[in-house]
Amino acid sequence: MNKEYYLKETLPFSKDLNDEEKNELISKSFVGKYEKGELVHSKNSSCTGLLITMSGNFRVFISAPSGRQITLFKLYDRDVCMLSASCAFQNITYDVNLEAQNDASAIIIDSSLLKKLSQSNINVMNYILNLTQDKLSEVMYVLEQATFFSLDERITDYLLEQSRYQDSNMLYITHENIANELGSSREVISRILKKFEKEGKIEVSRGKIKLINL
Amino acid sequence: MNKEYYLKETLPFSKDLNDEEKNELISKSFVGKYEKGELVHSKNSSCTGLLITMSGNFRVFISAPSGRQITLFKLYDRDVCMLSASCAFQNITYDVNLEAQNDASAIIIDSSLLKKLSQSNINVMNYILNLTQDKLSEVMYVLEQATFFSLDERITDYLLEQSRYQDSNMLYITHENIANELGSSREVISRILKKFEKEGKIEVSRGKIKLINL
Repeated sequence: MNKEYYLKETLPFSKDLNDEEKNELISKSFVGKYEKGELVHSKNSSCTGLLITMSGNFRVFISAPSGRQITLFKLYDRDVCMLSASCAFQNITYDVNLEAQNDASAIIIDSSLLKKLSQSNINVMNYILNLTQDKLSEVMYVLEQATFFSLDERITDYLLEQSRYQDSNMLYITHENIANELGSSREVISRILKKFEKEGKIEVSRGKIKLINL
Repeated sequence: MNKEYYLKETLPFSKDLNDEEKNELISKSFVGKYEKGELVHSKNSSCTGLLITMSGNFRVFISAPSGRQITLFKLYDRDVCMLSASCAFQNITYDVNLEAQNDASAIIIDSSLLKKLSQSNINVMNYILNLTQDKLSEVMYVLEQATFFSLDERITDYLLEQSRYQDSNMLYITHENIANELGSSREVISRILKKFEKEGKIEVSRGKIKLINL
């Protein structure tokens, strides 16, 4: 699928752009290809730009100097992330990390162009506002989960969600993956998974977790 | 200070409104007076509206069915909160609580008017976008603190911040207040404060905490 088609199909404001703006959108965006685990954007990145997922998926997370991580949300087909364009918006003072979870591709739209279009076209700004509100809601949901639910409950929810998503009871996932999803440490996750195993809820082996009666 | 003056001084977009919009802004807003502890907005409220603090201060927090709470941010003089107008924005799917922390007053602007102005005037929409980005940054900061820092560190930071803010080493604050700020329980907070007391960092008495060597 080509870039122009994807931009037109994914961005509802594309019908409200004039010809000049449309041409600029096409010329100031590119298709990036990323390998599994590749960091597309981080605190140390220069201004990456707005990302539209074309294939594979991406994980957006925050990290501590200690290396601990917590996932904010994931991006699947046609999901759009403007946090990697935060440099264009002075009020987003918090930078996130964005990594490819498998071999993936995405359209990246230049941040300055995004800023320019949003300042001159209310439809573009409305789109950015909706995206920002979506992300605010998602981050509040993550905060609620991290604050009010026990790690036992959160691990259970996460494993069940992965099982539904992959349509399988056998999950190929490391304890470190789970720790990075939930903002915990590998040691704590391993301890709880062992407890789950003793209770007959799961079976744990190297790089795999089989759900039995969770 | 009167409402018109406050609206004009606080809202940067007021200079970009035409006379009709200005009159509507004045007629569709009111000054609300709230008592200490009063819940101005909650999940169960009907559509409250955009809030501009005139006097006193407000606390914005999320809560669990168990009663546990965590503070997202506070509103002081002229601070503006659009989360209590979230009903006007379909992409904010997460409702917060907003309570007066002392006898306080605020201008409340009708949510439907806010929506209407933002859809027709790019300056209003830009203002709402900036506010939303501010709040996204603040909530990500709270999530970072809650996830990556120990409760010992977070209590220490909170007490030092309160001491700076009140310019005093004697804080009139309950263990439950601290629990509600930090998303913890009263029991856990009391245990850590006792430990701090044993270490000679603070002195705890009923409703008071004196900072000694924190």
